[in-house]
Amino acid sequence: MNIRVVTGITTSGTPHLGNYAGAIKPAIIASVKPNVESFFFLADYHALIKCHDPNKLYRSRLEIAATWLAVGLDIDRVVFYRQSDIPEIVELSWILTCSTAKGLMNRAHAYKACVSNNLSKGLDQDDTVSMGLFSYPILMAADILMFKANKVPVGKDQVQHLEMARDIAQKFNRKYNNDFFVLPEALVASSVGTLPGLDGRKMSKSYNNTIPLFEGSAKDLKSSIMHIITDSKEPGEYKDAYNSHLYILYKAFSNETESEEFRKKLALGMSWSEAKKSLYEKIEYEIFPMREKYSKLITQPDLIEKILQFGAQKARVLSKKCIEEVRDLIGIRSLIDYKKNNLGKGINYDSKINNSKNKKKARLICYRDDLNKFRIRLLSTTGKELLTIKDSFSNADDAVLLMKKLNWFLKKSEMNK
Amino acid sequence: MNIRVVTGITTSGTPHLGNYAGAIKPAIIASVKPNVESFFFLADYHALIKCHDPNKLYRSRLEIAATWLAVGLDIDRVVFYRQSDIPEIVELSWILTCSTAKGLMNRAHAYKACVSNNLSKGLDQDDTVSMGLFSYPILMAADILMFKANKVPVGKDQVQHLEMARDIAQKFNRKYNNDFFVLPEALVASSVGTLPGLDGRKMSKSYNNTIPLFEGSAKDLKSSIMHIITDSKEPGEYKDAYNSHLYILYKAFSNETESEEFRKKLALGMSWSEAKKSLYEKIEYEIFPMREKYSKLITQPDLIEKILQFGAQKARVLSKKCIEEVRDLIGIRSLIDYKKNNLGKGINYDSKINNSKNKKKARLICYRDDLNKFRIRLLSTTGKELLTIKDSFSNADDAVLLMKKLNWFLKKSEMNK
Repeated sequence: MNIRVVTGITTSGTPHLGNYAGAIKPAIIASVKPNVESFFFLADYHALIKCHDPNKLYRSRLEIAATWLAVGLDIDRVVFYRQSDIPEIVELSWILTCSTAKGLMNRAHAYKACVSNNLSKGLDQDDTVSMGLFSYPILMAADILMFKANKVPVGKDQVQHLEMARDIAQKFNRKYNNDFFVLPEALVASSVGTLPGLDGRKMSKSYNNTIPLFEGSAKDLKSSIMHIITDSKEPGEYKDAYNSHLYILYKAFSNETESEEFRKKLALGMSWSEAKKSLYEKIEYEIFPMREKYSKLITQPDLIEKILQFGAQKARVLSKKCIEEVRDLIGIRSLIDYKKNNLGKGINYDSKINNSKNKKKARLICYRDDLNKFRIRLLSTTGKELLTIKDSFSNADDAVLLMKKLNWFLKKSEMNK
Repeated sequence: MNIRVVTGITTSGTPHLGNYAGAIKPAIIASVKPNVESFFFLADYHALIKCHDPNKLYRSRLEIAATWLAVGLDIDRVVFYRQSDIPEIVELSWILTCSTAKGLMNRAHAYKACVSNNLSKGLDQDDTVSMGLFSYPILMAADILMFKANKVPVGKDQVQHLEMARDIAQKFNRKYNNDFFVLPEALVASSVGTLPGLDGRKMSKSYNNTIPLFEGSAKDLKSSIMHIITDSKEPGEYKDAYNSHLYILYKAFSNETESEEFRKKLALGMSWSEAKKSLYEKIEYEIFPMREKYSKLITQPDLIEKILQFGAQKARVLSKKCIEEVRDLIGIRSLIDYKKNNLGKGINYDSKINNSKNKKKARLICYRDDLNKFRIRLLSTTGKELLTIKDSFSNADDAVLLMKKLNWFLKKSEMNK
């Protein structure tokens, strides 16, 4: 059985070396495993909770997409899309909102941390807390449940949110008497996930201690690395690798033999400056070809947009199906209940849809092909075949759904022939 | 200047006589005033907060739509749509969620009433409170702001929610440095808005004291009216109309002369039974032709679905435009920033979209017509004109938007010619 993995990337900054080694690289490596179906998405509607600078948000989406592509994401193998291109996600989020208890959100660690921070300052407990921050776990649940993910890689701070996604799924399933949603499991990232920054603390934009990944040049990378803070041991002195974050960084970019050699050299007195140079070379060797790709991609927003639209098309095949099923379960369905129409073999669906008086129009027909699959064809006024939709459907409902959409466009147009 | 009025109807029940006289009839009368643009929508995503019975929700949407149509809603004059057919509304709702303070929602009367009810019972303050109930004012704000309503008819209990919609709009406008959203004003319904039920309390499903509107027959209506509770004054005795809810009901269905006559008859000793018969005849006279229409409509869910889809098409012309503008403001925009492309006269847009190697495909072109408007045309492999979209656009962005959608369908299809 295939394992489906969904990973969201919040688009509120520029990826740095810590993101690369801790998240991007391992995620891409994991995505090529057999039996794994990976969904990666740019979580721009999550980013909106914190980022109210439109240009920063716009730019971050571009940079993050370019980064993942430059590192080697295979868009044919994985589904790579942007959250805001899948309107079914916000729709599902509202549906889940209706069956989620407020009490559950009250217990979220991230929210509780804000409250206790506010209270310690003598402020109102909800001071500066937005509804976005408060409801965020529901949108996250929609992201995951929509694609029936089995596994979701998360940092330790996100484990509770994943538990909430399970709770929300179970509540919905119980309410609508169905085991509809798959309950996702957390894949908690190992400690490798965290790289130290320039000052030895976790590399993070909020500490202002990041090392750039692709933005800037090799020179900038080198200059950053040369600024990593070390102790004041002189060249020739013994240096304990295990107490040095240079070593942790080196390990993230080398195999065991290489990192062991680095450790030994430090013990034997390699100077910090030499060690940094060697770290720089190690990193640059790995990321140089990616930076080349990145630099090209970043100047081609139209190409990236196309790639994201391609991903959105793939994702929406699933999200549309899911939302149709959810709508049917909750009673928000078309008043024409196609399920009961029981489309038979060879039925000519156009009699139902094109019943306008003016027969001088192009019309769609639905038929079964030799393989007994439903297919859709556009006929001209004279009955001449104009288009046949490539896709075939084993399910009549899917064919009808597409018919409805195509028909909408037909209504908006006129056949001049 | 036109006044735009938006009215939502929650689809969680069957309309009764109180809904008719207090809401439906006045709303339809108001909708035909000059300079008024009315938007009526079935608020099924609001209904979902309270109604978790899919069949009830499904049925209620049908009944309410049939009722409004039977009473005389003019679907050409007003925009009559179903909330769940406008995906832009839930999307806008999430966007507003991100810029709305949780503190604002804490202060909502409806939520506070639940809390104080829970506390008085010694329960947790959020017991049985769903996130739907808590976030409801944001969805309501999205319903209103999406269509830039100037006026929103509300009951007294909804005035605060409308204030919140204004707050939410102002917060967004301030944040994105723009006076983008129109601030809506409440049109508070007069006391006419409330009819008494069988027991004299406000007619409401929760009191189980309603008089049916169209469901059932004239007989059922009569039988209900004969069950209205009165005092035990005998025929011939003086009866004070102002202390009788029969009189209030009668007034709602008659002009001043008629109701004055009714009052006098009561004073002169008309029996309660005669008074009820006369009330029944008055009501039946008014609603009989509507009930006939209703009975026909209710058996034609496919027709009602078509009418709602027609309304959704009209509404989405505005909602799509609005969400595109909002997305642009907040930075959730296409990476290809069409605004900057500055489409000029006669530009052949297909060079941008159909740049695949295989030129043997149908293609869309965008051109300016004699009136200098943007129009879209589908050409066959050989350059033959197949379709021309009826709509013309004064704004290049709108044309491009439609091109993108059509192109998606083209990609999914193959030209067999």
